[in-house]
Amino acid sequence: MSENAEIKPIREIIMIGTGNVARHLGEAFFQKGIKIKQVYGRNPDKAIKLAKLWNSIPVYDIRQLLSSEIYFFCLSDAGFLEQTQELSLDRGISVHVSGSLPLSALSGLSKQNGVFYPLQTFSSDHPVSLNDVPILIEGNDDEVTHSLMGLASQISTEVRVVNSEQRFLLHIAAVFACNFTNYMYVIAEKILEDNKLDFDLLKPLIKETAAKAMHYKPGDVQTGPAKRKDQEIIRRHLEKLGNNKDFQEVYKLLSGKIEDHFTI
Amino acid sequence: MSENAEIKPIREIIMIGTGNVARHLGEAFFQKGIKIKQVYGRNPDKAIKLAKLWNSIPVYDIRQLLSSEIYFFCLSDAGFLEQTQELSLDRGISVHVSGSLPLSALSGLSKQNGVFYPLQTFSSDHPVSLNDVPILIEGNDDEVTHSLMGLASQISTEVRVVNSEQRFLLHIAAVFACNFTNYMYVIAEKILEDNKLDFDLLKPLIKETAAKAMHYKPGDVQTGPAKRKDQEIIRRHLEKLGNNKDFQEVYKLLSGKIEDHFTI
Repeated sequence: MSENAEIKPIREIIMIGTGNVARHLGEAFFQKGIKIKQVYGRNPDKAIKLAKLWNSIPVYDIRQLLSSEIYFFCLSDAGFLEQTQELSLDRGISVHVSGSLPLSALSGLSKQNGVFYPLQTFSSDHPVSLNDVPILIEGNDDEVTHSLMGLASQISTEVRVVNSEQRFLLHIAAVFACNFTNYMYVIAEKILEDNKLDFDLLKPLIKETAAKAMHYKPGDVQTGPAKRKDQEIIRRHLEKLGNNKDFQEVYKLLSGKIEDHFTI
Repeated sequence: MSENAEIKPIREIIMIGTGNVARHLGEAFFQKGIKIKQVYGRNPDKAIKLAKLWNSIPVYDIRQLLSSEIYFFCLSDAGFLEQTQELSLDRGISVHVSGSLPLSALSGLSKQNGVFYPLQTFSSDHPVSLNDVPILIEGNDDEVTHSLMGLASQISTEVRVVNSEQRFLLHIAAVFACNFTNYMYVIAEKILEDNKLDFDLLKPLIKETAAKAMHYKPGDVQTGPAKRKDQEIIRRHLEKLGNNKDFQEVYKLLSGKIEDHFTI
């Protein structure tokens, strides 16, 4: 492709998958007037439900996909490998949305392929605006990269091109910043619930902790007993957690790592 | 005290300590027109700086404290035990601001004493509005409790009475929800920094993860490879973290705990 060739904007997609990412991406595309030709799902109820929302056609057999400019594979990594095994697309771009699958996972599927990874956590009921969500793009040729950038720009202002290695590292970092963080909230809530205390009391703290990460390097605003190396409080907290060995183990490991991190 | 006795509102305090909590609380009181009679600090520079801010008098010898309605001991737990050893106050209420020290830690100091624990994280440079921060109150008699509630109500709309045991549990939960959460951000940032990737890319995710905790039970919105029991991704993430054994160990422990938590 020459540098001056005009990239035809993508006006239609086929959505493969009915999970959280499929739903949030599909909805964002639909809202921007991009046609969703088909919605594929092994579970007919879910495919029908989404197809209704988006004036689309549900399909339950992946071999019945129509021809399309682009195919969005919004499947779990395991589901992707399993369900696409015997699939081969004559034309169009096949795209996956995974942080951890390399671009090369698509190479048997179609000549042109790419990755469209929204760096966000999607839960079923919670509506998320994609407008400031980074969308990380990779294409197996310049035409794909530019097409996907154009598509991403319609739903987000934060579009970046990253390679498979960088995306994989971002995904690992995201597991810490999101999944493990949420698990810290889970533990905090359980400790309070077990003692009939109100989780609401922690909400300003949770909000402020996240707000500080927007403006400071997290290492510069670390606080707490482990940062202060306050062994007496750590000892008493661990003792109090004696009735939940899992939480005790997490407290002990993380306190030790924080002490080490801020000593070196 | 009879139920109908009128509690005289507190109009003056002495601030003992110059750390983050002292600074944030003192500033909030000063803004509400409460007189800060003295600021005590072992470090003269810090005491002088705060005294200037609050039109107050700096002192560096704890034996030179004047008489006051209330004494705010904003010291670390270790500092508190060390610096108040030989102190005895004839009158006034002595108050500490610690989540983990019991009320009884003040019993040798004065006849009336209490706890005034703001459930928030304070970093030196970052201004925090205390308006929605829970302030957890305990008094050794009703008069103290009501006086402290009145004082707290001047700077926050979230004032609760909790006992030492409940406060201790809330402090432990806060270590998970704030200190350990911030350490997750520290790890995420280090992974990206080591690979010349931009921490800004994670900010919408951090914001959304905290925002979900405002509206849902954290256990209901857990996402990620460990929650999905996606062993293949977990294995590849651990392999990639091989050059940082600390982060690898944290990833492994937390993934295992999440898998267990969502299996039971």
